Amino acid sequence: MEQITVIKIGGNVIDNAEALERFVKAFAAIEGAKILVHGGGKLATRMAERLEIPVQMIDGRRITDKATLDIVTMVYAGLVNKQLVAALQGAGCNALGLSGADGHIVRAHRRAPNPIDYGFVGDIDGVDSALLGTLLEAGITPVFSAIMYDGERSLLNCNADSVAEAIARGAATLAPTDLIFCFEKRGVLRDADNEDSVIARITPTSYPPLKADGVVKGGMIPKIENALKAVEAGVRRVCIKHADDLLIEGGTIITND
Amino acid sequence: MEQITVIKIGGNVIDNAEALERFVKAFAAIEGAKILVHGGGKLATRMAERLEIPVQMIDGRRITDKATLDIVTMVYAGLVNKQLVAALQGAGCNALGLSGADGHIVRAHRRAPNPIDYGFVGDIDGVDSALLGTLLEAGITPVFSAIMYDGERSLLNCNADSVAEAIARGAATLAPTDLIFCFEKRGVLRDADNEDSVIARITPTSYPPLKADGVVKGGMIPKIENALKAVEAGVRRVCIKHADDLLIEGGTIITND
Repeated sequence: MEQITVIKIGGNVIDNAEALERFVKAFAAIEGAKILVHGGGKLATRMAERLEIPVQMIDGRRITDKATLDIVTMVYAGLVNKQLVAALQGAGCNALGLSGADGHIVRAHRRAPNPIDYGFVGDIDGVDSALLGTLLEAGITPVFSAIMYDGERSLLNCNADSVAEAIARGAATLAPTDLIFCFEKRGVLRDADNEDSVIARITPTSYPPLKADGVVKGGMIPKIENALKAVEAGVRRVCIKHADDLLIEGGTIITND
Repeated sequence: MEQITVIKIGGNVIDNAEALERFVKAFAAIEGAKILVHGGGKLATRMAERLEIPVQMIDGRRITDKATLDIVTMVYAGLVNKQLVAALQGAGCNALGLSGADGHIVRAHRRAPNPIDYGFVGDIDGVDSALLGTLLEAGITPVFSAIMYDGERSLLNCNADSVAEAIARGAATLAPTDLIFCFEKRGVLRDADNEDSVIARITPTSYPPLKADGVVKGGMIPKIENALKAVEAGVRRVCIKHADDLLIEGGTIITND
């Protein structure tokens, strides 16, 4: 393989039928080996409401008890994953849906219950690059939900950004790998109100002043820091851009130099 | 591969935690290449009830409107499939869950709306044996739900027995293949009240008198006739037996002679 493109989409694409339709066409048109990682959007919360299962959030994170784990498994690994696979197949992309349990392709562990017990929430340990390579060489496009597995018996609810980063690291051992996070803006903005103020490039050197000056703040901090860790771990570049810009240049590119 | 074993389980295994636990251990202990096909049991009906979506049955078959398709996709391809995969992984079997859409590994079409419009219900056309072979050669145990795909955009709800038969036919082009249907009895019984009256073997020659005499009747007729078609199409043998007898001889074996 010449290169691998790993793309992560979240609620802003999944929850919007038209945006999803545009994304599927653009994704199918990307040449070469590629991998999709998806979150679940608001569907799991809506399903929990319909089933009258209380949604508990701490610091913006969902507490995953057994009933909630069943819901996210149904919605993310079932409904969203298979609908994406069918839509991609319909667009001519040979997609195959996976959770971390399938082929035990991603190793994860349940997060320690201290200081906060998030329930069946996991963190990623690594990826089975050999199986990933077998699938990619067979012309398959893996489509990952963020439902992972602890290696013993339990499924785990994981953060889709972290899954995408781990998959990209694993892919980078096979071929030069780019990781694209589809974002609701055109990139990381210098001025949050101005979509033309995209910061073209962030590196380990340029990042600290951006953080110190408050240009990068809030939810962007873990995104950028994860991206910097990914490029340090061998991913060629990470790009944060709007899903509609998938096939054109642009967005914020995070590289080692 | 020396041989392939395809096993189908239904509600009598899936809906019973202890039976499922026993099955997972036995299945994991089967040597050589193997494939699991599962139905959904009563979970989909219970989920539809909780979501207040009416269940419509005609002649014992579920009418699958869009809301029902979403439920069976969530429950069969999501919850049941991933729980089975995790349980098998925990038992040392490298399972990987699939729907027909994944890798477009099974070709299906929506059933014609006349005389009865079953909605998003499909019938199977064939199996991508090459991809099946790639997975089996990589040491993977495919685990199929009965959620299939029309090759264009739509997922389809299919009969799990028919999926198992189609998978076995496809597998038979790769290596000698046995198909086992896990059943609530020890096999096809000559006397429905006597579990010791298992008919050891049924062939194209011995079947017509069994049907004419009413020994094989009701729901067993399509099961046996599908099994006879499977062996005619190249499956080495079909066995109907109790899930608890998976690792021992017995049950009813259907062969060509």
